[in-house]
Amino acid sequence: MTAYNAPIKDMQFLLHELLRISESDLPGRDELDVSFTQAVLDAAGQLASEVLEPLNATGDRQGCVLENGAVRTPAGFDRAFDAMREGGWTGLDCDPEYGGQGMPYVLNVAANEMFVSANMAFNMYQGLTHGAYSAIHAHGTDAQKAMYLPRMVSCEWTGTMNLTEPHCGTDLGLLRTKAEPQDDGSYLITGQKIFISAGDHDLAENVIHLVLAKAPGGGEGTKGISLFIVPKFLVNENGSLGARNAVSVGKLEEKMGIHGNATCVMDYDGARGWLLGDLHKGMRAMFTMMNEARLGVGLQGYAVAEGAYQNAVAYARERLQGRAVTGAENPAGPADPIIVHPDIRRALMDQKSFLEGARALTFWGADLIDRGHQGDADAEGLVSLLTPVIKGFLTDKGFDSAVQAQQVFGGHGYIEETGMSQFVRDARIPMIYEGANGIQALDLVGRKLAQDGGKHVMAFFEMVKGFIAEHGADEALKTDFLDPLKAASKDLQAAAMFFMERGMKSPNDALAGSYDFMHLFGQVALGLMWGRMAVAAQAALDAGTDDPGFYETKLATGRYYMARQLPITATHLARIRSGAAPVMALAAEQF
Amino acid sequence: MTAYNAPIKDMQFLLHELLRISESDLPGRDELDVSFTQAVLDAAGQLASEVLEPLNATGDRQGCVLENGAVRTPAGFDRAFDAMREGGWTGLDCDPEYGGQGMPYVLNVAANEMFVSANMAFNMYQGLTHGAYSAIHAHGTDAQKAMYLPRMVSCEWTGTMNLTEPHCGTDLGLLRTKAEPQDDGSYLITGQKIFISAGDHDLAENVIHLVLAKAPGGGEGTKGISLFIVPKFLVNENGSLGARNAVSVGKLEEKMGIHGNATCVMDYDGARGWLLGDLHKGMRAMFTMMNEARLGVGLQGYAVAEGAYQNAVAYARERLQGRAVTGAENPAGPADPIIVHPDIRRALMDQKSFLEGARALTFWGADLIDRGHQGDADAEGLVSLLTPVIKGFLTDKGFDSAVQAQQVFGGHGYIEETGMSQFVRDARIPMIYEGANGIQALDLVGRKLAQDGGKHVMAFFEMVKGFIAEHGADEALKTDFLDPLKAASKDLQAAAMFFMERGMKSPNDALAGSYDFMHLFGQVALGLMWGRMAVAAQAALDAGTDDPGFYETKLATGRYYMARQLPITATHLARIRSGAAPVMALAAEQF
Repeated sequence: MTAYNAPIKDMQFLLHELLRISESDLPGRDELDVSFTQAVLDAAGQLASEVLEPLNATGDRQGCVLENGAVRTPAGFDRAFDAMREGGWTGLDCDPEYGGQGMPYVLNVAANEMFVSANMAFNMYQGLTHGAYSAIHAHGTDAQKAMYLPRMVSCEWTGTMNLTEPHCGTDLGLLRTKAEPQDDGSYLITGQKIFISAGDHDLAENVIHLVLAKAPGGGEGTKGISLFIVPKFLVNENGSLGARNAVSVGKLEEKMGIHGNATCVMDYDGARGWLLGDLHKGMRAMFTMMNEARLGVGLQGYAVAEGAYQNAVAYARERLQGRAVTGAENPAGPADPIIVHPDIRRALMDQKSFLEGARALTFWGADLIDRGHQGDADAEGLVSLLTPVIKGFLTDKGFDSAVQAQQVFGGHGYIEETGMSQFVRDARIPMIYEGANGIQALDLVGRKLAQDGGKHVMAFFEMVKGFIAEHGADEALKTDFLDPLKAASKDLQAAAMFFMERGMKSPNDALAGSYDFMHLFGQVALGLMWGRMAVAAQAALDAGTDDPGFYETKLATGRYYMARQLPITATHLARIRSGAAPVMALAAEQF
Repeated sequence: MTAYNAPIKDMQFLLHELLRISESDLPGRDELDVSFTQAVLDAAGQLASEVLEPLNATGDRQGCVLENGAVRTPAGFDRAFDAMREGGWTGLDCDPEYGGQGMPYVLNVAANEMFVSANMAFNMYQGLTHGAYSAIHAHGTDAQKAMYLPRMVSCEWTGTMNLTEPHCGTDLGLLRTKAEPQDDGSYLITGQKIFISAGDHDLAENVIHLVLAKAPGGGEGTKGISLFIVPKFLVNENGSLGARNAVSVGKLEEKMGIHGNATCVMDYDGARGWLLGDLHKGMRAMFTMMNEARLGVGLQGYAVAEGAYQNAVAYARERLQGRAVTGAENPAGPADPIIVHPDIRRALMDQKSFLEGARALTFWGADLIDRGHQGDADAEGLVSLLTPVIKGFLTDKGFDSAVQAQQVFGGHGYIEETGMSQFVRDARIPMIYEGANGIQALDLVGRKLAQDGGKHVMAFFEMVKGFIAEHGADEALKTDFLDPLKAASKDLQAAAMFFMERGMKSPNDALAGSYDFMHLFGQVALGLMWGRMAVAAQAALDAGTDDPGFYETKLATGRYYMARQLPITATHLARIRSGAAPVMALAAEQF
C-alpha cells in the first residue's frame, strides 16, 4: 500500500523564493501571489493524493483491455478522469479563448508533477491531449481551432501523437504511412503506427489523432512529411460526432509498466484526415512543442521517483531491523528503525537531493518556456539548450532513484504488493519515449551546443560564473556550494572545449562523449539550482523565518548534493576525453 | 524472441590462459585439460541454448500457480528439469561418494553462468538445492548425509533455505519460529517463513527445507538459533516417502521478475524437523556456505546481463535507423544498422567490458574457493574478502548493464514481446536477496577489511602492486592498463586509509562510505582482471595464435574498461572522504 503527500511547501519555495513568479515582468503574474498558488497547489495535491494515487496500483494490476476493437481502461479511471476535468486541470495553462484557465505553464508543471507522482499512467491521457492541443493551437486554422480546442481543453476529446512505425522511430525519414489528397481537401491516411499512448480508451467521446504521413510531392526523407488531424469519429460541422473513421486498434501492447495507459498499434486504412499546418512541413509542426513535451517527460522521470522516495522514507522509519552502531535509538523496541543506518541514509539522501534539484531545474525550465512564449528569445534559446538535459538526465537519474527507493524495502520491494516494483517499471519508460536518451545526448551535442553560434551555452556558463562571483564573499556558501559548483562547471567547460577542438575533424570524438556530456551538464545544472536554493534558504533564515526547519533541511540537503553527487563530473570528463578510439575500436562482428 | 549463445571461447580463455586450472597443484586438476573442459562446456551450452532458453519467456509469462496447496511450475519446466538431471548437471561439483561428479567448483560456476543466462528462474530450483546439499554435506550426521545427499545431488529431491520472516530479514536475531524438542530426538517447528525460493513445486518428489528456528535454552538474538532439516514429506528409514509433514504453502508471491521460480510463504504448523549441525549454532551452519551462495548470486547479476547484452548486439546489428556520421555504411539499404552510432557503441562497450571482467572475477573467486576447500587458508581469506564485492558490485552493475541492453531496443525494449524487460526485471533481484547489497557493503567494511588483522586486504593490495611491477617494462601495457590500475588502486588504498583513521572514533564515517567502497573495490578488482587478461591475450598474440581476432578484441575491450569505467574510482573516493556529516545531517523526521 503506497501513499502520496504533495510536496507543496517545496513547490511554493521554488515558485516564490527561487523563481519569484509573482514579481516577474510577465503580464498577469502579479495575481499569482503566495496564497493564490497555495490554493491551486492544495487542490491539485488533494486530487493527486485522494483520487489518483489510490488508483495507481489498480491501473497497474488490471491494465487496459482490448475487447471488440475498443480499449477499456482500469476500474475507476473514468470517474477520476471526470474529477480531473471538472476541476479544470486539463486546461490549466490553456488559452482562455478556448476554455482554458490561462495560468502560466510553470503552474501546470507543478500540478502535473503531483498527478504523475500519484498515477503516471492515468495522467498520460490528459498529458498527451495537452500536446495535441498545443500543436493545433500553434498550427491549426481558425476553423480547426474552433472545432477541436474547446473539446480538447476540457478533455471531452483526447489527443494522441502518431510518429513511430514498426521499422522507424528515431529515423522518421523512413516512414511509410501515406496521405492521398481528395477532391474535398481532405486526405486518406493509410499505414500502421505503433507505440501510440492513449491510442484508444473509454474516457472520452472522441480521440483526435495527430498523424505524420507522406503526401505526394514532398520529396525524400523527412522533407516529405506532413501532419494530419485524424479523428476516431468524424466530426460534423456542428461538432456532433459522425461516422467512425477508418482507424482501428490493431493491438494493445503488453509493457513493462504504465499498464494503466493504453499503448496501441493503430491501423489507418484510408482514414480521413485533414492537414494541420503547411504541407510537407509536418516535422516542424510536430516539433514546435518539443521543448514542452520533453520537459514533461523529464518531469515524469523525477515525479515517479518522488512517489517512490516518499514510500521509502515511510518504510525506513517503520521497519525495525538492527541497531544504530552509535547506540540503540529505539531501546524500548526489539530493534531500531532502519533509517538510523548510514547506508540507508545515503540512499535516502541521494534520492532527496536529486529530487529537489530536479524539481528546481524543471520549474526553472518551465518558467523559461513561459518567458519564451512572451517573446523572450534568450529564454527560449536557453530552455532549448536545457531541454535535452532535463529530459535525458532527469529520467536516467529518476529511474536510478526509484531503484534506490525499492532497494530500501529489501525483499519486500521486489514483490508487487508494496508497489515499489511499479514505481521502477513505470520510471523506465521516460528514458525511452519522446526521443530515447541517447537521442537527447545527440541533440544536445550535435545541435544545441552550436545553436545560434553557441550563444546559449555561453550564456549558461556566464550565468554560473556570475552566480559564483555574486556570492563569493559568503564563506559558508563558498565552501559548501560555490567551490564544488566551480569545479564542476570547469569540467563542463573543458568537455565543451574538447568537443570544439575535436568535433570538427572527428565528429565521432564528440558523439562518443555525448551521453556523458548530457550527464555532466545535468550535474552542473543541478549544482547551480542547489546554489540558488541555498542562497534563497539562507536569505529566509537571515530574515527570521518562522519555519527555520524547512530552510535548514534545504541547506543540509544541498550540501549533500554538492559533496556527494557533483564530484562525478570529473569521471564524465575523463570518459569524454578518452575520445572515440576506445568506443569505436571494434568492428560490428567483434561484439 | 531472444536467443543465447554460450560464450565458451571466453570461458576457455579464463580457465586455461588466465587461471591455468589444469596446471594447478590441486589434486586431479591435470585431467581438466582444454579438450575435457571444452566437452563439458559445450554440453552445458547446448542444454542452455536449446532447452532452457526457449522456456525463459514461457516461465515469465505463465509464472507459477498455487492450486490446492501445491505449486505448478510453467509448462515445459518438468522436462527441462529431467534433462538437467539426466545430464548430471545438478551434481557436477558434488561429492562422488553421494553420486556427484567431483568436478571443481569453478567448472560448476561456468556451467551455471550459462544456465542463468538462459533461464535464471528455472536454474534456481537446482541452485537452491546445491546450497542445501552443501549445508548437509558440511554439517550433517552420516545418517543424514546418506539419506539426503544422493537424492539432492540428483535433484530427485530439491532443497530450500528458510531464513526470512515477515518482521525480520537482515536482523535474524528477531526471528520467532520455534523448535520444540520431542522425546524421539526430533523437533516440532512452528512459525512462518517468507520469500522462500523454490519453496514448493512439481519438479521433484520431495522438498527438503533447511529452517532456522529457536530451540529452548539458546539465549537471546542470533545465539539461540539452530538449523533444522524439515522435509515436505517425511522420509521412511528405507528412503521411501511417508506422510505429508505439517508444512504448507501459505501464499505464492507476485514478484517483479523470476516468475518461473516459486517464491513461497511457508507455514510451519508443528512440522517435524531434525537438527542439522550443533544446537544453537544454526547461524554458523547456515553461513558456512555463504561465500559460495553469494558468489552464485553475483554470478546471476552478470549472467542475466550477458543474456540481455547478446540480444542487444543482435538488435543493434539488424535495426536500420539513421546514417553513420562519417558516411553511410550500408549505402544499399534505407539506413545503417544502429551499431554504427557512437552512442550505441558506448552502451555496448560498457556492457561488454563489464561482463567479461565480471566473468573473470567470478571464475577467479570460484578458483579461490576450490583452493580454500583444499586447505589454502590464504585463498579462503582472500575470497572471503572478495565475496561481498562479487555479490554487491556485480549485481548492481549487472542490473545497470541489462538496463543499457534494454535501452538499445528503444521503445521495443519496453514491450514484453522482445524479452528485454524480463532481463531487467530478473536482474533486479540479485541486488536484494542473499543479503541486500547495502549489507554486503557493511560486511566488507565492517568485517572483512579488518579480518585476520587486515591480512587479506593487504594481500590484495600487494597482488595489485606486484602485478604492476612485474609488467611495468611493457610500454603499451603500462599506458593502457597499468597506469589506470595504479591510479584506481591508489584511490582504493586512500579510502581504506580514511576508514582506518576515522572508523575507530566515528564508525559512521566508515559506514557512510561503505557502499562507495564496495563499488570502488569492485572497479579495482575488475581493473586487475583486465590487466591479467591483457597480459594473457598479449602472450597468445606473441606466441602466434591462430585466432588473433579473439585476443585483439579482448585487448580493445580491456582498453575501453580502463579508459572509460575505471576513472569512476575518483568519484567514489570523493564521496567516501566527505564522511558521515552530509549523510547523517538530517533527523529522521526531516526527510
